[in-house]
Amino acid sequence: MEHGVFPGESVTAPDVPDEVIDRYRELSADIASGVGVVSTRLRGRDYAATVSGFLSVSYDPPTLLVSLYAEARIAEAVLDAGSWVLSLLPARLRGTANWLASPGSPLEGLLNQVDYGRAPETGAAVIEDSIAWFEVRTTQVMTAATHQLIVGEVVSMGRRADADDESDPLLHFASAYARLGR
Amino acid sequence: MEHGVFPGESVTAPDVPDEVIDRYRELSADIASGVGVVSTRLRGRDYAATVSGFLSVSYDPPTLLVSLYAEARIAEAVLDAGSWVLSLLPARLRGTANWLASPGSPLEGLLNQVDYGRAPETGAAVIEDSIAWFEVRTTQVMTAATHQLIVGEVVSMGRRADADDESDPLLHFASAYARLGR
Repeated sequence: MEHGVFPGESVTAPDVPDEVIDRYRELSADIASGVGVVSTRLRGRDYAATVSGFLSVSYDPPTLLVSLYAEARIAEAVLDAGSWVLSLLPARLRGTANWLASPGSPLEGLLNQVDYGRAPETGAAVIEDSIAWFEVRTTQVMTAATHQLIVGEVVSMGRRADADDESDPLLHFASAYARLGR
Repeated sequence: MEHGVFPGESVTAPDVPDEVIDRYRELSADIASGVGVVSTRLRGRDYAATVSGFLSVSYDPPTLLVSLYAEARIAEAVLDAGSWVLSLLPARLRGTANWLASPGSPLEGLLNQVDYGRAPETGAAVIEDSIAWFEVRTTQVMTAATHQLIVGEVVSMGRRADADDESDPLLHFASAYARLGR
């Protein structure tokens, strides 16, 4: 049933005004998502960062996408390494999500306080108790505005959670962490 | 704290075996997401489909990505039109999500039972009571495995929900619809 044209706030200027960006920040915060950690290993060093911009692209072949801020250390490391791991965090690992989301997190000892194992093919960190994890080799990269969209094929995968944890993912919505209703 | 190499299920064959695809379907179902409707208007006809594969790419300029199965009618229509709307569904519009997710939904009368308005720039359908909506012009397209990754700049946006609905998005997790915990 049609109700006419909705009053939207239009973006008309080629340079986007601050108030439009602020409004977009506010509205796009309502895109609910799971929370994961993207990690990679490069020249013997571990890189890891909390992400909420990722999705499953395809089942055949199993293909994932992660969106990373192009100037972030993790983006550079993932692109250099050519491979990465996505660990899906359970609700109880909110502390890990906070730690690895901090732009000021140290390069040395980043994972000292985080329980993790190693992915079989590349040795990148897999967060212990992830509800699922995927080890991925990058196949395509696209620069879009401020971000790199990194697509890859899954080369190994698994689950680290007990059956009970499985159904309780950490979520992100309205600029805060959240969990599923029961 | 490192705990050694995790036993993963490796993917080694160039043609992915069915059991690997099945396992990926199972594990990737644990990627929690919001639920939206992508719509477009092409030669006077409305196209709309429920999606869970979308994300915000960038704030400046405001940029969104949606992943659509390449052979779906909606993918063809969105690419032809060069513009689309993403409406974020509130939890109570689960019925709309189910209706527009059906591959057998009719082309004629698709929106007869759905409340909607029109986006100001392109006239594509905006689902009434969306917690937020974005009207987008496509700027980049990348084919990845079975899907088209469609990226675009937001040209208008708004909210259709009452304040109370705002914080209750429809979610998708473990192959089912869900809602936030309180």
